[in-house]
Amino acid sequence: MVKEYELLTAETVPAYVASMLNLADKVDASTLVAEEVGDGNLNLVFVARDAAGGGICIKQSLPYVRLVGEAWPLTPERVVAEARGYSAAAEASPDDIPVVYGYDDSRYTLAMENLHDLVIWRTALNDGIMHPGVGAQMGRFVARIAFSTSLFKMDAGELKERVAESINPELCKITEDLVFTEPYGDYANNGVQPGVEAAVKDIQSDATLVANVGMLKTKFMTSAEMLLHGDLHSGSVMVTVDKDEPYGKVIDPEFCFYGPVGFDLGALFGNYLAARARAEVLDRSDEFRTWVGQLPQETWEAFEAEMWKLWPSRSEAALTDEFLALWLRSVLRDAAGFGGCKAIRRIIGLAKVSDIETLEGDDHVKAATAVLRVGARWIKERDSIMGSTRLGEIASEELART
Amino acid sequence: MVKEYELLTAETVPAYVASMLNLADKVDASTLVAEEVGDGNLNLVFVARDAAGGGICIKQSLPYVRLVGEAWPLTPERVVAEARGYSAAAEASPDDIPVVYGYDDSRYTLAMENLHDLVIWRTALNDGIMHPGVGAQMGRFVARIAFSTSLFKMDAGELKERVAESINPELCKITEDLVFTEPYGDYANNGVQPGVEAAVKDIQSDATLVANVGMLKTKFMTSAEMLLHGDLHSGSVMVTVDKDEPYGKVIDPEFCFYGPVGFDLGALFGNYLAARARAEVLDRSDEFRTWVGQLPQETWEAFEAEMWKLWPSRSEAALTDEFLALWLRSVLRDAAGFGGCKAIRRIIGLAKVSDIETLEGDDHVKAATAVLRVGARWIKERDSIMGSTRLGEIASEELART
Repeated sequence: MVKEYELLTAETVPAYVASMLNLADKVDASTLVAEEVGDGNLNLVFVARDAAGGGICIKQSLPYVRLVGEAWPLTPERVVAEARGYSAAAEASPDDIPVVYGYDDSRYTLAMENLHDLVIWRTALNDGIMHPGVGAQMGRFVARIAFSTSLFKMDAGELKERVAESINPELCKITEDLVFTEPYGDYANNGVQPGVEAAVKDIQSDATLVANVGMLKTKFMTSAEMLLHGDLHSGSVMVTVDKDEPYGKVIDPEFCFYGPVGFDLGALFGNYLAARARAEVLDRSDEFRTWVGQLPQETWEAFEAEMWKLWPSRSEAALTDEFLALWLRSVLRDAAGFGGCKAIRRIIGLAKVSDIETLEGDDHVKAATAVLRVGARWIKERDSIMGSTRLGEIASEELART
Repeated sequence: MVKEYELLTAETVPAYVASMLNLADKVDASTLVAEEVGDGNLNLVFVARDAAGGGICIKQSLPYVRLVGEAWPLTPERVVAEARGYSAAAEASPDDIPVVYGYDDSRYTLAMENLHDLVIWRTALNDGIMHPGVGAQMGRFVARIAFSTSLFKMDAGELKERVAESINPELCKITEDLVFTEPYGDYANNGVQPGVEAAVKDIQSDATLVANVGMLKTKFMTSAEMLLHGDLHSGSVMVTVDKDEPYGKVIDPEFCFYGPVGFDLGALFGNYLAARARAEVLDRSDEFRTWVGQLPQETWEAFEAEMWKLWPSRSEAALTDEFLALWLRSVLRDAAGFGGCKAIRRIIGLAKVSDIETLEGDDHVKAATAVLRVGARWIKERDSIMGSTRLGEIASEELART
């Protein structure tokens, strides 16, 4: 049962901020001007600046899915999950997220650092702008949270308690439906532009593929390895406009819950793939295409290196170095599979991505078709993927073929 | 914090039963005579009979591990887990367990049907007595609970709630330590009889094996697929003395929690292996040796057949028949791996089994060594195991070799 609460508007944000004691030292509420900038699917997002140049960001959960409207109700308690995700990240890897000032459970808002100098990474990727090192940063970020929230660092009893308190069934159901179920069947949310139908039919009629997606779905639903971000695509990362010292900040962990490590990595891989397909059909510079093409490998290698770096401080001494090597191989396989699912859903299902949707005509058909084919191969061939370079090779093969 | 509570004795059981209103119609408490029969590691177990031949069984959790004594404290709340396990089984497969009359959370007792006509299956196996069909019954039992307590039948939100409420960290820790950690290192609980040391050294110095055991351990700790029995060895099954219509009853689900399906099957497989090794060195009849040798296959085939039988009534329509085939293959691999771990711990670690321990001299060395070697191969070769007959073939090869 959702209690009644008032939704903020750009006009009411300054008074709201003024009413929150813990925000008094962040901005001068009396000169604050706010703007609604949310382009996500589930929330209102306000950025507000004061006369002295100070800023703050207020995110408010809507009681329904913004993309669909009030016909799809959703409890706003997901802000608790988001606060939990930020809190785990603040402990394990604080530089990779905005500073969170606090959350207000009466209005379902989260107040945080205003990242006014940063832009959504997807936008930068769409515009052909390189951010060297951000892919590696993402790999380290996932590794640090994977390590600190899993049994590698946490006592088994504590882990079980954390898993239990972190369940997030409503948001997980969105992923279960939109990522793992709907793209493979006849659902109202699905739809593609003309010319892509044949590739969709190939996906939906491939019984082996659909069975493997089922395996990944059940793994997503039952494997509680780490506190996942849960929605770690290139729209959940903000990057610097300044390209001299590029870095990113991860935002929007409201889907956070205990799930399989490979899922966050796969979300990155699947969205890198969309960016790469766009770069190829738009014939971006060699430098950009090479860079975007190696992103899965860059993220994976940084993930792997960070896990090895953290490994000596594990609390589970019975787990050996040979174990970590085996475990990393299985995470890579999972990441390939989840990456494929994430790529496919962005073409067929609800919540498409601008990387592909803003392409027109043959460019669109070519990019969308290639993403579907690569996604299907990442899923079906995942058990034979021995190194992250293989992800890029499969993508190159299918991009050349379409 | 454990509250003070009075432990029962054979002398106080009749008065205790008389004081429980819900037991009034089960037995005549005024003529009840009780006996303590617990041979397990964690509890007191009383069977009581009245003058008219009525019977009842009272199980009481001790606040410590019985096998070790008060030096290993353990909260008696595990009786709640046991009641939960019985309750799930009563819903999914009632004929396979004793009737439970209720539990008393002030004394940590469980009152249930007295299975006075049945004996522990391990005892029957040790004595070379066949119970045709009980292996298949166990496979069906695991399948029914796997189906009814997993996402195959349960809504995802409900499943997450059940997983959260069913955590059982204290008992799980016993398994984590005794099954997956201690046998592979230098721990005070370990020990083998003379002549087995070399085979133990082979196990402990095999880095690939130890890494694979780590993978199985982390799967045990993070994969919440079904409400497991959690300790389903041949000492947790009682079988009829009457061999004309043999059947079994599963008891002692106090280790129950949400874990990987393959774990319960593996517990059976590992203990079948101990029984088979005993039968071979004691040179039992061809008939018995053939029967005990095919038990893993009998259990697996019945599990698989029951899953296919239940499959059309799944609530997750998006999961296809091709998915179930893939899923069954992965459960078999898990079961092989967990079976190997269960076999090895019964030789090296705490809580050994009478199948092997009561053998003497060369017989003991031969059986113990073969069990260790088979266990190691089931673990290391599990990914290439395509059918349950392979489990028996590996066992035959190693039994012939030792």
